[in-house]
Amino acid sequence: MGSAIVDVLAETEDEVVAGLGLVKGTMALIDLGTAESLYEAMAPAVEVSGGSAANTVAGVASFGGRAGFIGRVRDDQLGQVFAHDLRAAGVHFTTPAAVAGPATGRCLILVSPDGERTMNTYLGAAACLEPGDVDGSSLAASRLVYLEGYLWDPPQAKEALRRTVAVARAAGTRVAFTLSDPFCVERHRDEFLAFVESGVDVLFANDVELTSLFEVDDLDQALRLVAGHCSVAAITRGAQGSVVVAGDQVKAVEAHPVDRVVDTTGAGDLYAAGFLFGLARDADLEVCAGLGGLAAAEVITHLGARPLVPLRRLAGQAGLLDRASI
Amino acid sequence: MGSAIVDVLAETEDEVVAGLGLVKGTMALIDLGTAESLYEAMAPAVEVSGGSAANTVAGVASFGGRAGFIGRVRDDQLGQVFAHDLRAAGVHFTTPAAVAGPATGRCLILVSPDGERTMNTYLGAAACLEPGDVDGSSLAASRLVYLEGYLWDPPQAKEALRRTVAVARAAGTRVAFTLSDPFCVERHRDEFLAFVESGVDVLFANDVELTSLFEVDDLDQALRLVAGHCSVAAITRGAQGSVVVAGDQVKAVEAHPVDRVVDTTGAGDLYAAGFLFGLARDADLEVCAGLGGLAAAEVITHLGARPLVPLRRLAGQAGLLDRASI
Repeated sequence: MGSAIVDVLAETEDEVVAGLGLVKGTMALIDLGTAESLYEAMAPAVEVSGGSAANTVAGVASFGGRAGFIGRVRDDQLGQVFAHDLRAAGVHFTTPAAVAGPATGRCLILVSPDGERTMNTYLGAAACLEPGDVDGSSLAASRLVYLEGYLWDPPQAKEALRRTVAVARAAGTRVAFTLSDPFCVERHRDEFLAFVESGVDVLFANDVELTSLFEVDDLDQALRLVAGHCSVAAITRGAQGSVVVAGDQVKAVEAHPVDRVVDTTGAGDLYAAGFLFGLARDADLEVCAGLGGLAAAEVITHLGARPLVPLRRLAGQAGLLDRASI
Repeated sequence: MGSAIVDVLAETEDEVVAGLGLVKGTMALIDLGTAESLYEAMAPAVEVSGGSAANTVAGVASFGGRAGFIGRVRDDQLGQVFAHDLRAAGVHFTTPAAVAGPATGRCLILVSPDGERTMNTYLGAAACLEPGDVDGSSLAASRLVYLEGYLWDPPQAKEALRRTVAVARAAGTRVAFTLSDPFCVERHRDEFLAFVESGVDVLFANDVELTSLFEVDDLDQALRLVAGHCSVAAITRGAQGSVVVAGDQVKAVEAHPVDRVVDTTGAGDLYAAGFLFGLARDADLEVCAGLGGLAAAEVITHLGARPLVPLRRLAGQAGLLDRASI
């Protein structure tokens, strides 16, 4: 469950990113006027379907998993693009498109020469997700539901999240949650903490987001704190791989090697895809982290946040399906 | 002057292309219904601005040339994408968007593993170009105008072409023309022949299009025939480079080496960009062909039909700007 977003990607020099007053590597929410003026200042771009959780479910499907998506587009051309790409990836997607109100959401992404991306999101129709959009029977039939922290921003969408968690808990569906972005954590720290403490089963975050959540400087300290709250926490650390915490177990897993980083958009989303795919099949946590690292490594070698080759094939070649007995 | 089109590109196995009843490597015109059903059958895709002549002018601008574009979009999201990308590339584009009628045109492109592309074009608003859209003062101020053979299909657009040629000739602006596609030549052979004979200054075609135009099997024969009709003909031959014919001069120029062909979409368009850029600066024809080959080589190494790096820089590194005294 997440924001339905089409990414608009343009390669951009760092001076231009700074000149536009943007903070490299982060995600900022912008209004329609800002989106229009920023787009005007952008180089020729490429449009690719995105959205954090949507990228994740596309990744799960690419591993051969069964996945659905809940999120809102408008009945416009970009909404058609988003729905097409998700369904063509094999994801079940039935949330009705809005017939009025803001246009389909988009994320203006400036990709730096080092592959780092700076994201500016106009949520548009994605913010109009409502509790009534939550498909209870699909949720109850799922092993896991994955929620995007970004949905905390629009009030209606937050209500939809809460309803999802209630339905999932009643049905015994495990709840996974991503902190999404350091600024997102700053905006909602208290509510995120309360949510995580109330029993998120699987938490995803990167190192910056996790230390920000607990307002500590040290990752090890944050890892000790998170261990008490969720049954599993998977923390990504960019080129340094990931750390998985489960009770008193802490496992560091190396990053999958990559020849050249082109665009880091979607690295965290695809890590979650691999991890969740493994977890839904009761794979060992180290294998889950390996599947996550493999998917993240694929997606950062090209422009766009969804895999270009079947992740199931890559996982098979890497021996991870055997290790997971999948 | 050409069709304003957004490309929708998806990597596709050859069996799928054949299974859809498509002829690999060609361009087919499709109606809205076919566009919708073909899109539904397509894999997740990427949207990038395209259109043959629009790619060419974007290439000219990337070389540092001054260029404008005449073509029609609708006032919809894909139309905004097309206009943004062209203007952001530095191209002057003022043809007003249609406020009613068909949506912005798109080309559904299936990219095969060998990089060859199969194109299916729904012209949409691009077919609504009219003689009134021809900007006479810009035309008169230009050294060259470049016309897309594809525009011969919609009757109004053909009238716009004819008006353009009349204005250009009266103003002393040289007329360049591309045969566009083998099927396009078949549809309009007699009119194309008459047009070329009536005095196209610069003709672009690939080997298949040229032999089809003159209904001969042998390229050398076609080259002899074309020499009598236009002052310059630049004929592309894929990996075998290009041949330039001017009067009794025939120069074969080798293709620029490429590590790996990813997507041949735009190869001919970018060849024309380099060639026209050189020609507008009175460069030697061999240098023009070299600039064309350089631009084509860049565009086939990545997905999408417009250059990702400044062609002026590549041309400088290859010593072609010095040779052209640019």
